[in-house]
Amino acid sequence: MKINKKDIRTIRASDSKTFVEIIDQTLLPHQLVFKKISKLDEVISAITTMQVRGAPLIGVTAAFGVALAIREKADSSDAFIAEVSKKLINSRPTAVNLAWAVNRVSNLLHNINPNDRLEAAWAFAQQIADDDVNTNKSIGIHGLQLIKKLNLNKVNIMTHCNAGWLATVDYGTALSPIFFASEAGMNIHVWVSETRPRNQGTNLTAWELEQAKIPHTIIADNAAGFLMQQGQVDCILVGADRIGIDGQVVNKIGTYLKAVAAHEHQIPFYVAAPLSTVDVNFMGNQKKSFEIEHRDPEELLTISGINKKGDIDTLKIGRSAALNPAFDITPSKYVTSVISEEGIIDPENIGRHING
Amino acid sequence: MKINKKDIRTIRASDSKTFVEIIDQTLLPHQLVFKKISKLDEVISAITTMQVRGAPLIGVTAAFGVALAIREKADSSDAFIAEVSKKLINSRPTAVNLAWAVNRVSNLLHNINPNDRLEAAWAFAQQIADDDVNTNKSIGIHGLQLIKKLNLNKVNIMTHCNAGWLATVDYGTALSPIFFASEAGMNIHVWVSETRPRNQGTNLTAWELEQAKIPHTIIADNAAGFLMQQGQVDCILVGADRIGIDGQVVNKIGTYLKAVAAHEHQIPFYVAAPLSTVDVNFMGNQKKSFEIEHRDPEELLTISGINKKGDIDTLKIGRSAALNPAFDITPSKYVTSVISEEGIIDPENIGRHING
Repeated sequence: MKINKKDIRTIRASDSKTFVEIIDQTLLPHQLVFKKISKLDEVISAITTMQVRGAPLIGVTAAFGVALAIREKADSSDAFIAEVSKKLINSRPTAVNLAWAVNRVSNLLHNINPNDRLEAAWAFAQQIADDDVNTNKSIGIHGLQLIKKLNLNKVNIMTHCNAGWLATVDYGTALSPIFFASEAGMNIHVWVSETRPRNQGTNLTAWELEQAKIPHTIIADNAAGFLMQQGQVDCILVGADRIGIDGQVVNKIGTYLKAVAAHEHQIPFYVAAPLSTVDVNFMGNQKKSFEIEHRDPEELLTISGINKKGDIDTLKIGRSAALNPAFDITPSKYVTSVISEEGIIDPENIGRHING
Repeated sequence: MKINKKDIRTIRASDSKTFVEIIDQTLLPHQLVFKKISKLDEVISAITTMQVRGAPLIGVTAAFGVALAIREKADSSDAFIAEVSKKLINSRPTAVNLAWAVNRVSNLLHNINPNDRLEAAWAFAQQIADDDVNTNKSIGIHGLQLIKKLNLNKVNIMTHCNAGWLATVDYGTALSPIFFASEAGMNIHVWVSETRPRNQGTNLTAWELEQAKIPHTIIADNAAGFLMQQGQVDCILVGADRIGIDGQVVNKIGTYLKAVAAHEHQIPFYVAAPLSTVDVNFMGNQKKSFEIEHRDPEELLTISGINKKGDIDTLKIGRSAALNPAFDITPSKYVTSVISEEGIIDPENIGRHING
């Protein structure tokens, strides 16, 4: 993706293989700050504080985390890799891509001579970063066909949270079809729901669309139903943090309310995600493999922005007890299609596309 | 309602009949500031800037506004009263109680000797203030029966926006049954949705419940669906700004999403409102009598709170274009019952309780 016309990825591996450079997403849209990370603790902190976020990106970041940890401690033993993997997987419990990436790198290293493991881990992390870019391009191209099929002169697309370039290595999942549609010259307008409590819509999605010069409008999450009532929404396009083998979708809190309302209004509700988001252990009410993450209530009770001096500042906006679940679950009956790198999939049939 | 154990109403008529005293609700929960208002412009400003808000309270405030305007300009002519009424009614276009109160006072004055109109307007405003208190007590008593009928040891009630004491002269509409249930010793817990973009849940409802020592938890509006999924919501209780003669409900933006999700989960969805909220000209898609108010997009893009010095401050949190509809419409099929001062009403039958 281009920032100020320059091609940039959200995570960049150093040539020296001693650090990765990320964008501190907690400072957007106010400041664009790149940050070098070389230690495991820094990787975990970047994930938990959401300097990097988005299911695909935290998977890639965690894979680099394994390599950086081996380098930092000069330890490539099975025991150490197992310990590091566990720490990384626990840093955010809901996104399946995190566990997917860490387990893949850890399984791979198990079969490699310990002396070669650092090199292999680094190469593997780079590989899944590149794979992510290609996956998201494919999602964009498949999703573009869905948007074209709506057959409208102007298309109003609603999204939630940020499933854009910033949530991945490049292109994004839910925003990838939007970027492709815009490049194809389609007349697109995006409703950006602010996505409380962390405002990823306002902070990240609006910023991405601004960079790409795609018309968009921020709304309160509360306004989603009203806009559907008014016929102002042609389709909804969101990402996913985990998809059940039966097609149910775990995604940012608030997704479910949009899905239920879209269903009432017969508005197509599309979930764009790589197949690595599918969790074969999750179906029906069985959630063996994950928990819905509850984050610090302070995320609801304080807020950051720019003060009158132009500096980033934080205000206290509430003082009662608060509850802050980060995700909800949308049953497959509300999901029109999943847009994957392999094409458009009926959510109920997603299991057929997965190799155990 | 008691603040720091002292009985207080949200609007107090001065004995001298020269001003009314309101609470500047834009400063809550951070500061409790009372404000004297004596001029028409101040009344209109208090309504448009939401220093006073809530359908019943703005009706009462506007009625006092007519009296204050007559006094200010020493003009009680029909023409002047018509002009003042129009200004007041246009100050916020969606809440029916505003037009209801202003039209009632203006019709009354029409049949009174101009010399007696100031006195009559003041007395009438005081009367509808007192009526509002009694109406809301009745709503509370009827609503308490509904809560009792749920037959639960602990009742988790979700509300939206602020339909409490602060939205009325006293007791509130949606919160009135909650106050009565708490006084009756029931084990009540309230989910307070923050209600973006103006955060009336966090700022006002949480503050009211804190004053009344009723257990409550703030949530992001986005979390409402998740809590219903988890079986954590026994009923939903909201107010209304306007009710169609066919039972559809205009209320704070975001109400509709909660109603649709409640319907999916078969959770009772109650609307508490005085019968003065019913608009006989509103049914089906006919909205002759009102418009959905769109407020300043800056309400989404800036936010106020307490800075590190302990002062109220404002931050810029977004910079794209924004759209800020203030209300949405919930069709009657999603409304389990309307709790009125006359008792529990099926929304479809609400027309039978109205005298043209």
